[in-house]
Amino acid sequence: MSDFLLDERLARDSECLSKLGLCQLRLSRDGRWPWLILVPQRNGVSEIFELTPLDQAVLTFEINMVANALQKVTGATKINVGALGNIVRQLHVHVIARSEGDPNWPGPVWGFGTAEPWDADARKIFVDKLQEALS
Amino acid sequence: MSDFLLDERLARDSECLSKLGLCQLRLSRDGRWPWLILVPQRNGVSEIFELTPLDQAVLTFEINMVANALQKVTGATKINVGALGNIVRQLHVHVIARSEGDPNWPGPVWGFGTAEPWDADARKIFVDKLQEALS
Repeated sequence: MSDFLLDERLARDSECLSKLGLCQLRLSRDGRWPWLILVPQRNGVSEIFELTPLDQAVLTFEINMVANALQKVTGATKINVGALGNIVRQLHVHVIARSEGDPNWPGPVWGFGTAEPWDADARKIFVDKLQEALS
Repeated sequence: MSDFLLDERLARDSECLSKLGLCQLRLSRDGRWPWLILVPQRNGVSEIFELTPLDQAVLTFEINMVANALQKVTGATKINVGALGNIVRQLHVHVIARSEGDPNWPGPVWGFGTAEPWDADARKIFVDKLQEALS
């Protein structure tokens, strides 16, 4: 894994919370929504179907583990899962907690408005709860 | 499967192309993008993590099979895969072929503008090619 190269924009727009078996679990620096990003630690992959079958299975497991924990921690109305990559081509999967009345609800989060930083206290509480739910 | 109930909005906005092992493979009636929708034939499920582990694995397989075929048939720049469900709660997975300069590129398709019907000839050519790629 030591030679995995993270896309610069992913590095700038999110921070690493932990490393799962396959993916880096990252938190978006945009605090408008509880927004996690899973980045498989594989170079040169843009599409999920380019992963090996084993990696595809592990990615599915990690997405669902994280989505389930995120739903429990936030009590969100709906979890949005998406792999778009139109701007950043390195494969990454968004897992976002959505609640009625949040910014752009019920539309998507991508491309909406301008990022706002997390409140430091809210961020700490959220991350602590999430890590506990994942442990 | 005989008692699977399809959400009315999914039925109105897309048409069934075929039935895979788990999912209905459906084509969006919005012809602005080549836009497929996979609907697992399971009642009462909103989140991927609510599926059984076996169904999660099969869904992953079907998403990737369809995404790979869609990429080959369209030559798209990027495949967008998303499970949002903020409006329609029945679990469904979008698999969309995106190309530079298409409507709202590089933003998401969801919630953008107004649906436009397929050109009948273009639709037939696309569906025939897709079915061949999947066979």
